[in-house]
Amino acid sequence: MTVATIKAITLEEFLQQPETKPASEFMNGQIIQKPMPQGEHSRLQVKLCTNINKVAEDVKIGYAFSELRCVFDGAAIVPDISIFRWDRIPRQSSGRIANRFEIHPDWAIEILSPEQKYKKVLANLMHCAENETELGWLIDPEDESILVVFSDRRIQEFKNSDRLPILSEFELELTVAQVFSWLSL
Amino acid sequence: MTVATIKAITLEEFLQQPETKPASEFMNGQIIQKPMPQGEHSRLQVKLCTNINKVAEDVKIGYAFSELRCVFDGAAIVPDISIFRWDRIPRQSSGRIANRFEIHPDWAIEILSPEQKYKKVLANLMHCAENETELGWLIDPEDESILVVFSDRRIQEFKNSDRLPILSEFELELTVAQVFSWLSL
Repeated sequence: MTVATIKAITLEEFLQQPETKPASEFMNGQIIQKPMPQGEHSRLQVKLCTNINKVAEDVKIGYAFSELRCVFDGAAIVPDISIFRWDRIPRQSSGRIANRFEIHPDWAIEILSPEQKYKKVLANLMHCAENETELGWLIDPEDESILVVFSDRRIQEFKNSDRLPILSEFELELTVAQVFSWLSL
Repeated sequence: MTVATIKAITLEEFLQQPETKPASEFMNGQIIQKPMPQGEHSRLQVKLCTNINKVAEDVKIGYAFSELRCVFDGAAIVPDISIFRWDRIPRQSSGRIANRFEIHPDWAIEILSPEQKYKKVLANLMHCAENETELGWLIDPEDESILVVFSDRRIQEFKNSDRLPILSEFELELTVAQVFSWLSL
């Protein structure tokens, strides 16, 4: 007689699976597919990347990537935006950018989608904080608030004219109201 | 010509309204009614109150109340369980317990219901933390985890055999697994 067992998938097995679209994430043995991005989500994602890279790329202090898989500490997550300080961007020996990012971002941004679980997105940012990601932003377009997760796992909600915390070397000033004003065309 | 205005309700006006069942909460000018408690919720609520009071009441170090309205810092919330240290329990001049609790609990416990918004419950616990509540527990029966919000707004997730943080004077040891084992009769 044999006993049926349910085989839990490992991170390595997950990484060998074909990519899905939207991307799938892996944490605590679970695979969860991200929701299909919609208008508000895409608008904020592009606007934020553009504004961050405007102050970070030319001066080579950092770069904001969208939908980049980051594999670290037993999980594979795909933050909506992952910002890395310039010197931490993984490179191949040729100097070209690496394809696999096996380190935590310095700053991770998640934009909540209507059908997405708040807890799941917060768990991603907590995983980042526990691995020394300096800043995590959880943007909630529905109530126009941004929850910031700091690297010591403190959380703080920002609203209206609150100025948002940014990586210190980045010469960028942004209020919550400015971020959500991008939603009005 | 007159201009129509939408009048926002104040905390005082909210408090003058008749009580609802389930209770309604007031924060940031918004009234939100709590969901109707279901089996798992009620079981955990009673089990926790009983276990906390077993170590707290006779020795007069504190008391766990269920569904108690706490009004402080511009909001009126009704945590599923509010624990007060004995000396902080509001009293009338006769020595009897007060009816209106206009102070923050020392420890607040929220039990997530299936239809309840994670963010709303977390916001209650953040409001508590910002007002010096020492411990906030957010119990999620679905994935058997407990998120703890500390008074410095740090958050930490506890699972499985993790021992839960308790108010220091309370001689109680509880793991996450123990709490959820109460769900099996």
